[in-house]
Formats: sequence, structure tokens, C-alpha cells
Amino acid sequence: MRLTVYLAGQIHDDWRREVKEKAESKGLPVDFVGPMDNHERSDNIGEEILGEQPNAIYKDEVASRMNNLRTQVLLEKSDIVLAFFGEKYKQFNTAMDAATAISIGKPLILIRPENLHHPLKELSQRANVTVENIDQALQTIQYIFDTE
Amino acid sequence: MRLTVYLAGQIHDDWRREVKEKAESKGLPVDFVGPMDNHERSDNIGEEILGEQPNAIYKDEVASRMNNLRTQVLLEKSDIVLAFFGEKYKQFNTAMDAATAISIGKPLILIRPENLHHPLKELSQRANVTVENIDQALQTIQYIFDTE
Amino acid sequence: MRLTVYLAGQIHDDWRREVKEKAESKGLPVDFVGPMDNHERSDNIGEEILGEQPNAIYKDEVASRMNNLRTQVLLEKSDIVLAFFGEKYKQFNTAMDAATAISIGKPLILIRPENLHHPLKELSQRANVTVENIDQALQTIQYIFDTE
Amino acid sequence: MRLTVYLAGQIHDDWRREVKEKAESKGLPVDFVGPMDNHERSDNIGEEILGEQPNAIYKDEVASRMNNLRTQVLLEKSDIVLAFFGEKYKQFNTAMDAATAISIGKPLILIRPENLHHPLKELSQRANVTVENIDQALQTIQYIFDTE
Amino acid sequence: MRLTVYLAGQIHDDWRREVKEKAESKGLPVDFVGPMDNHERSDNIGEEILGEQPNAIYKDEVASRMNNLRTQVLLEKSDIVLAFFGEKYKQFNTAMDAATAISIGKPLILIRPENLHHPLKELSQRANVTVENIDQALQTIQYIFDTE
Amino acid sequence: MRLTVYLAGQIHDDWRREVKEKAESKGLPVDFVGPMDNHERSDNIGEEILGEQPNAIYKDEVASRMNNLRTQVLLEKSDIVLAFFGEKYKQFNTAMDAATAISIGKPLILIRPENLHHPLKELSQRANVTVENIDQALQTIQYIFDTE
Amino acid sequence: MRLTVYLAGQIHDDWRREVKEKAESKGLPVDFVGPMDNHERSDNIGEEILGEQPNAIYKDEVASRMNNLRTQVLLEKSDIVLAFFGEKYKQFNTAMDAATAISIGKPLILIRPENLHHPLKELSQRANVTVENIDQALQTIQYIFDTE
Amino acid sequence: MRLTVYLAGQIHDDWRREVKEKAESKGLPVDFVGPMDNHERSDNIGEEILGEQPNAIYKDEVASRMNNLRTQVLLEKSDIVLAFFGEKYKQFNTAMDAATAISIGKPLILIRPENLHHPLKELSQRANVTVENIDQALQTIQYIFDTE
Repeated sequence: MRLTVYLAGQIHDDWRREVKEKAESKGLPVDFVGPMDNHERSDNIGEEILGEQPNAIYKDEVASRMNNLRTQVLLEKSDIVLAFFGEKYKQFNTAMDAATAISIGKPLILIRPENLHHPLKELSQRANVTVENIDQALQTIQYIFDTE
Repeated sequence: MRLTVYLAGQIHDDWRREVKEKAESKGLPVDFVGPMDNHERSDNIGEEILGEQPNAIYKDEVASRMNNLRTQVLLEKSDIVLAFFGEKYKQFNTAMDAATAISIGKPLILIRPENLHHPLKELSQRANVTVENIDQALQTIQYIFDTE
Repeated sequence: MRLTVYLAGQIHDDWRREVKEKAESKGLPVDFVGPMDNHERSDNIGEEILGEQPNAIYKDEVASRMNNLRTQVLLEKSDIVLAFFGEKYKQFNTAMDAATAISIGKPLILIRPENLHHPLKELSQRANVTVENIDQALQTIQYIFDTE
Repeated sequence: MRLTVYLAGQIHDDWRREVKEKAESKGLPVDFVGPMDNHERSDNIGEEILGEQPNAIYKDEVASRMNNLRTQVLLEKSDIVLAFFGEKYKQFNTAMDAATAISIGKPLILIRPENLHHPLKELSQRANVTVENIDQALQTIQYIFDTE
Repeated sequence: MRLTVYLAGQIHDDWRREVKEKAESKGLPVDFVGPMDNHERSDNIGEEILGEQPNAIYKDEVASRMNNLRTQVLLEKSDIVLAFFGEKYKQFNTAMDAATAISIGKPLILIRPENLHHPLKELSQRANVTVENIDQALQTIQYIFDTE
Repeated sequence: MRLTVYLAGQIHDDWRREVKEKAESKGLPVDFVGPMDNHERSDNIGEEILGEQPNAIYKDEVASRMNNLRTQVLLEKSDIVLAFFGEKYKQFNTAMDAATAISIGKPLILIRPENLHHPLKELSQRANVTVENIDQALQTIQYIFDTE
Repeated sequence: MRLTVYLAGQIHDDWRREVKEKAESKGLPVDFVGPMDNHERSDNIGEEILGEQPNAIYKDEVASRMNNLRTQVLLEKSDIVLAFFGEKYKQFNTAMDAATAISIGKPLILIRPENLHHPLKELSQRANVTVENIDQALQTIQYIFDTE
Repeated sequence: MRLTVYLAGQIHDDWRREVKEKAESKGLPVDFVGPMDNHERSDNIGEEILGEQPNAIYKDEVASRMNNLRTQVLLEKSDIVLAFFGEKYKQFNTAMDAATAISIGKPLILIRPENLHHPLKELSQRANVTVENIDQALQTIQYIFDTE
């Protein structure tokens, strides 16, 4: 049995690479999917395909359509959603993807720094598991496969 | 026909009162529900009912259980969700409630200041309607009832 | 028992008024809802609430958001959808609302002129009932209430 | 990961061949399914299997049953629906399949010529992505697979 | 609390009248709905509304569309389905309505003569309760309301 | 693409063998599943596993539990349900399985002799396709795979 | 707004009376429903309606059918499930009703003595709220209605 | 066709090993999944990953989150749930998993000793099949595959 894990979270640094490398070194039978994490391309994808838009809001509108299509297709293919909250950024998309996962019945693992425990308390309570770092998240996934 | 509207959003100021007063002055046939917006009580409700917890994280854990129960009951009773994003605060709960509304098929109206258009672009695209202030949101609800 | 009926179809003439008057004269215990059928207001509602948009496509985009919100709220409240196809206009929205009704389990009555039988054959087969005029549609609704 | 894409739209010309050839030349890991696009056979399939019917309407009735069965089976197998609107024809089936896709949670890409933006505005707003030609639609699908 | 009960079963005799009279004499807070049980009208309703059809099969086709619309609307309004099997007739519709009730989560009470236990064994096992006569069925409904 | 087809219907003769042989000779990429069609074993399976029961009704009760488990597992695995009605027998299970298929969204092909058109008219109308013999049913399935 | 609360739990003592009296004295706008809590009648209801059965297992089988019908009807009517675990008895039904509530999306409040925390830990984690006594449960329900 | 079977039940002895060995010796095309049945690890898994918790209740809280994540992922992957009740232990989790299986449409086979028939009667009635030992359960699964 292999599982597919959607990696929800910000696309400003390369935390997904760390997840993938550590999962590979542990030998986890897991395939990862996620949003486009080339930030610049994610922001420009609407205009890349549809051409220049009248203003910044409409540039965002068309980009978000492409990004939401991608998320909907890949989330549907996933067995687990891993949502990573960091110290910085608005991270509204992370919260949106995490809540969507809960609502459509996809198990959710939340990674968040301890000092975000208060603003994330309601989401954390609805998640299956909340941990503080990537290692703990991968141990949690490992536990699903363990037989003893 | 009356509609029930859930008011998702931060509980640091009294924006809900403004919504209710303006809706009443317009004569909208709408009932509003929402989270406990006495912020201090919302934070303390777990310990108020269950007694002191070992630390701040567990105090939050029990409070969030009470708050999530309330949200689940009232969201289920609602016909529309109105989610308000302001300039301040993390607002993860607002994003969570908005995404939950979309996922369970409740129509969603988003209020956000224009300068949040970029971090909220994916949520905004999935919402039914995005506006910039309370007056526009109430006009949008009014339009559902208008016959000409 | 009263039933709520959503009247899907074009908003270029006043066929809905005929439906309502005939239903009333038959004494049918039915409430009718439907889209904004003031055509000009339906087209302008986005700019009416959100202000001028950069071009005609974006004017349509914001209007359609308001119209789709209204349809989603009222369709959900309905027990039956009555979709009217006439000889003229593209009528894509009528087909969209009719297919939505089928997919979310709302019984569908289709009114179409006989000469549209070929292009509407697949939709007609999936509808509960297809008739050719408003009188037949109301007889069909009457039959649900008849006790002998 | 391969995706299955249902090609909804009229069956009067060979636009599906263009989609398939261009997808192949891009190396997209996609399988295409769709309606019977031999138009004459699609119209006659009811009588081909069940024999002559009393009149044109009933010939259409039995053909539409076969076509709707095919669509239901193949739509269920699909990950994405690509709906193509051209300048001509009633295209009620295209609107029906597109709305069905939305309602059952299949991501929808809409191709339509710019001059249809007004009559398709509500459907376009509910679609995930609206583009104007086949190349843009395939770029959109490509983006789901891109990793940078 | 009142409950609505759909009375599925053949329309050749007046068993529904017996159910209603006995329920009334017991003072059960129950409203009954069901198919058109004027058998002749049920068979003719398609032609009554749509005019003469080419042959008996198509007469049946149009009648069944009206009858299925009625059943879908009223079944959806029901809290319980009471399906009555007698000694005679094919009773395919009774089996169809009973299985539909189970599949859409409506509790099902089955009345059948003991000597039908074998051909109805699979349906009986999936029903909530199987009884042999109307009195037992009404006692079963009474039990839902009893407080001691 | 291969499809799985559940063969619902009576188990008194070997009509399923005819379906399978003809499908194989046509080269249809289809796998067939269905109920235990060794009639004696189907009737005895409850006592075979659980031992003798107090009477014929309870013998049937335990057998039907085993049969319903099998049907639920295999129906869930199927893409299409093919329900065969013959001239004889009560065939309540066939009607039950056909209605279950419709209700859970599995496309349904109905085979019935023409002279059953009246008692099966409502089920036939809700089916995707109704044919009169096995050859027509297999042509219908073939059509799903045809590309021209 | 009034809420309906299903009281799941053993029927050996009169804890439900305490719930109702305390809710009334608090003035909670809540209606309570639940299983037949006359234990002897609950055990005998199958034979009361259907007559004597061959043995104790089949007496239980028919009683459980009546009880499960009642639970299904009343659970569906409820907004919240309150499941009470005491120190004694197997309480499998309490666990079953609690898990059913979670699975069908009904918010769940669990009352359990502290010394059952270990065997109930997985159920408690999936519940919305876990408390130790009836007073706390009613405070939790009160909180849903509180406006400050 | 292979089936995946989730083995719900207590983790105090090695009944799952017996199931797997007997299934293998029968040549059943079945894959088994289930909870972590190293009891000590199951109890400690929360602290193993998240570190020491303030008290026994919170140790249980974090362990149950890991265990419930595992169950949710594996239950979703299963075609059948086999729930084993023994003479000892509270077995609330077994009842919870069995009721969850029923509610999400997974066929359920219950193994229980005859002397538990009374406290398990409602759950047993809702299960697909109830047997008394592992051999009977495997015969029941075997029957799904049998062709004569």
C-alpha cells in the first residue's frame, strides 16, 4: 500500500523539499503532491496562459483559477493532507486547504510552531493530529504503516 | 422567506453589531448567528466548564472544542456564510469557516479590504461573491430577495 | 403541504408572470422563486454593488457572481425546478440550472417547444417530465397534490 | 500520475482530434474520453439497437438514453471535464455536461470564443477556468503536472 | 413532533384507507402521502396531460414520468416509508420504492404476508422492520412516539 | 479501460452464462460479477455457515444476510448494473437491486420481455436504457467503448 | 431557535430525567428525544408486536429492529447527540450511537466518568466535547445560545 | 479481484494472527489492515512522537489522535470491516469502528460469542452478518468470491 500526501502550505521557502528528502531517507511508501511552489510562476500563471489582465486584482483572479484547479485535482487524489504553518506570512491558503481537507473527509496532519497554538486552536482541534515539526509529521505517517 | 446568515470573522471588535444594525435598518428578513464574540469568554469557555487545565495549550484545546461545537451547530442552520477579513490579526478561523462553508455547499460572501486581495485570491475565487465592505455585503443579500 | 418551485429560464419576456397567474387561478399551493428577471438589473448588478469594472468581461464576471449566489440560495430552498426553453436566445443558463437540478436531486420539469426536441433530447431524457407549454407543466404539478 | 479528461461539446466537427494530437505532441499524461462523435451514429444509436420507433421524438428518446448512459459511465471515470463551446449550434448538451461536472465535483475547464462571454457568464464563473482556445486549455492541464 | 409516512405499494385496492383510518383512531401524529391510487388515472396521466401517444409502451412511458415525479417529491418529504406487499400482482414498484427508501436513508417498514417470506427475504433483511399486517405496522410507528 | 458489470436477476436458469459467452465472443473489455447463482446454495448459505435455524423464516433471514453482504460488496465494485427480468418468478430482488443501482448512481440497463412493459414502466423510466434481450444489452455496452 | 438533542446511553436508571429537569430549570430552548427507556418494554417490543419468537436470540433480533427504527428516525431529527457513559454495563449501544452521530455529521457531546478516560479515549477525541457530568453538558449546550 | 478487510477489535491478544493464517491457508484473495495491535505502543504513540504530556488524560488524548488518524486512513481503503468482540474488555472502540463502518457504507461482519447476543443486539441487527467465530467469518468472506 502506498499513500498520496498533499503538502498544503506557503510557497516562500523549500520546506517541501525537506519533507520529501526525509520521507525518502525513511523509506516511506508515500507520493507527495502539492501546489506549484515556484512562487513567481504561481502568481503569474493566469497571465502566462490568458495574457495580460486589466489590473493586479484581475491578474490575481485568473492566477487563482489555475491554482485552485490544480489543488482540486490533486487534493482529490490524496489520502492525507499535511498542512504546514510557519511563523511568517498570512497563510490563508494553508488554512483554507486544511479546512477543505477536513470537510471532504481527508485526514489532516497540522504542523505549526508552538507559539501559534492560540490562533490555530480551533483548526488544530479539528485536525487529526497536530505536531510541531516535519520529523514528527513523518513519524505520524510512518505509524500508519507500522505493524508492531 | 427568511434566511439565516452565519457571521464568520474575528471577535476583536464589534463589526457584527454594525452588520445587524444596518440589516435591520434596511428591513432585511435575515437572522444572524455566529461565534461567541465576547473574546475573553471565548478563550476561557473550556476552563469555565471543565475547570483549570495543565497549561495554555490545553486551556486552548478545551476552549476550541466548545467553540467548534457551537460553530458546527450554527453553520448547519445557516443559509449563507458571511466571512469578514480585516487588516489585523491572523484570522485563521475566518479562513477555516469560509472554506468549510464552500465545502459543505453553503454560499459564501467574503468581505475583505482591497489590500488583502493577493493573499486571499484563491479563497476569493472560490467564494460566491467578494466585496470590500459591509454595505456591499448587505446589498448582495438584499439582491436575493429583490423582485425587480 | 406547500411546494417551492424554482423557475429557471430566460429573462427576456414575462413567462414567469403567466406561470404565477395560472397557478394562482388553479389554487395550487405553490411558492415560486427564480432569478432576477429584470434583465437590465441582472446584467448590471455587479457594477451596481461593486462599482465600474475594467471591461465588459469583468462587468459580466461580477454580475454573474451575484446571480449565481442568488440561484444557489433559492435552488437549495426549492422542491421542484421548472425549466422553460423558448424558441430564441442561447439559453445556456437554463440548461445549466436544469442539469444542476438533476445532479443535486431536485425533480425537474422541462417546458420546450416541440421543434427543440432534437437539441434537447439528452436533457429531456434526464428530466422527470418534458411538456410543451405552461398549462401542461402546471397540470403536472397539480397531479402531485391530487388525491383521486 | 495520469489523468482522464472528458471532452464535452458539440459533435459536428473534429475539435477533439485537435485536442488529442496537441496533447500527444506536448507529451501530456492524459487519457481522453467523450461522447460518440460520429454524429450520424449518435443520432441513430437508439434505432440501431432497439429498431424503428414511431416518430422522430421517440427516435430521439431512445438515442438519448444510449448517449446518456455512455456519458454517465465515462464522466464518472474522469478527473477533469473540458467543455468546448463554439460559435454555432445550440450546444445545450455542452452546458448540461459542464453543469453536471460542477455539481458532482469534477473540475471544469471551459473553452469559449470571447464573443460568447455574455451568455456564458454564469457558467464561466462557476467553472474552474475559462479559456478561449485549445492551446490555453492544454497549458492549463499541463500546469497541474508542472513541478517548477 | 409529527412524522410523514409514504405508503408504497399496489394501487388495486384500498389498503391505504385502512391504514389512515386505523392511524386516526389510534391518534397517531402522522401525515400520509403516497402515489396516485386511482389506478385508471395513474395509468392515463401521461396522455391526460400530453395527449395520445403512438402505442401502449409510449403511453406507459409518459405516465411513468408523471408518477415518478410525484414519488420523488413525496418520498423526499417523508420520514418513514411503509411498503405493503400483498398476495397478488407483480409489485415491482413496491420493491423499487422500498429499495429506494433504504438507499436514500429513509427508514423502511415492510408489510408482507408470511407466505411471501422467501421471495422477499433479502429485501426484508435490509428493511428496518418486517411485519405481517397493518395493525403491527401502526404499532411499530406508535412505538417511536411512546415515552414509557 | 475495462468496466465491471453486476448481473442482477433471478438465479433459476443460466442466463448469466449466455451474457458472459456472448460478451466474450464480442471481445468486450468487461468483467462480470453477480449474486451466487447456484440457487440451492444461495438458499442454504445461512445454515451452511451458521448451522440449523429454528424455522424456514429464520433460515431465510440468515441466508439473506450472506447474500446481501455479497451484493453490497460487488455492487460497490461495479460500473454498470445489468438487471434481467424474465417472464417468471417474483423477481423482487431484481427490482430491489435495480432501484439500489439507480439510487447510488450506478448506470442501469434493464432487460425485460415486451409484455412486462406495463408493470415495469416506472422502473424502466428511471433506468438509463431498457432493452428486450441480451444481444441488445451487449450492443448497448459495446457502444460505450466505440470510437466511431 | 430551538435545538433537538438525542440522549444516547443506557436505559437502566433515570439519568435522562435529570437532564430534562435541569435543562428546564435553566430555561434551555431544547427538546429531548431518545430511545425507549422503559428497559423491560425495550427488550420485549419485538414480541409485543410480532408475537413469541423461537428463542432468546430471535426475541432480541426483533426487538432490536424496532429499537433501531426508533433511533434512526429520532437521530435524523436531532441537532446534537448527548451520549452518556456510566460506570456500569456494556454500553455498546452508547458507543454505537455516538459513532453514528459523528459519521453522519451530528455534533456529539460525551459525558463519561473520569476513570473511563482510557477505554473511551479514541471516541472522546472524535467527539466535539467530552465532559464528566450532566451539569457540564448542559453548560456546553447553553454556550451555543449565549450572546455574550 | 482482491478485497481489503479492516480488522476492528481489541488489541490484547493475537486474534488477528489467527484470522490472517486461516485466510492464507484457505487461499482467500484478501489483504488485512487494522489498528496498531502492539498494545503498549498504541498507548504510548502520542508521547513517543510529541513528548511527555501533563497527565494520563492528555497522554491518552495525543495517543488517540495518532490511532484515529491510522484508523481513518485504513478504514477508507477497506472493502469490508470485520469487527471482533470477545468476552473481556470494554471494547468501546470495536463498537465505534463497527458503527462507523455501517454509517459510511462499508459492509460489516460481526464476530461475537453467543452470550453477548443481548448487549450487542442492536449493533448485530445493523451489521450485514453476525457470526460466532473466525472460521464462520472467513467462510462468509469466501462466499463473496465463490462462483458455484
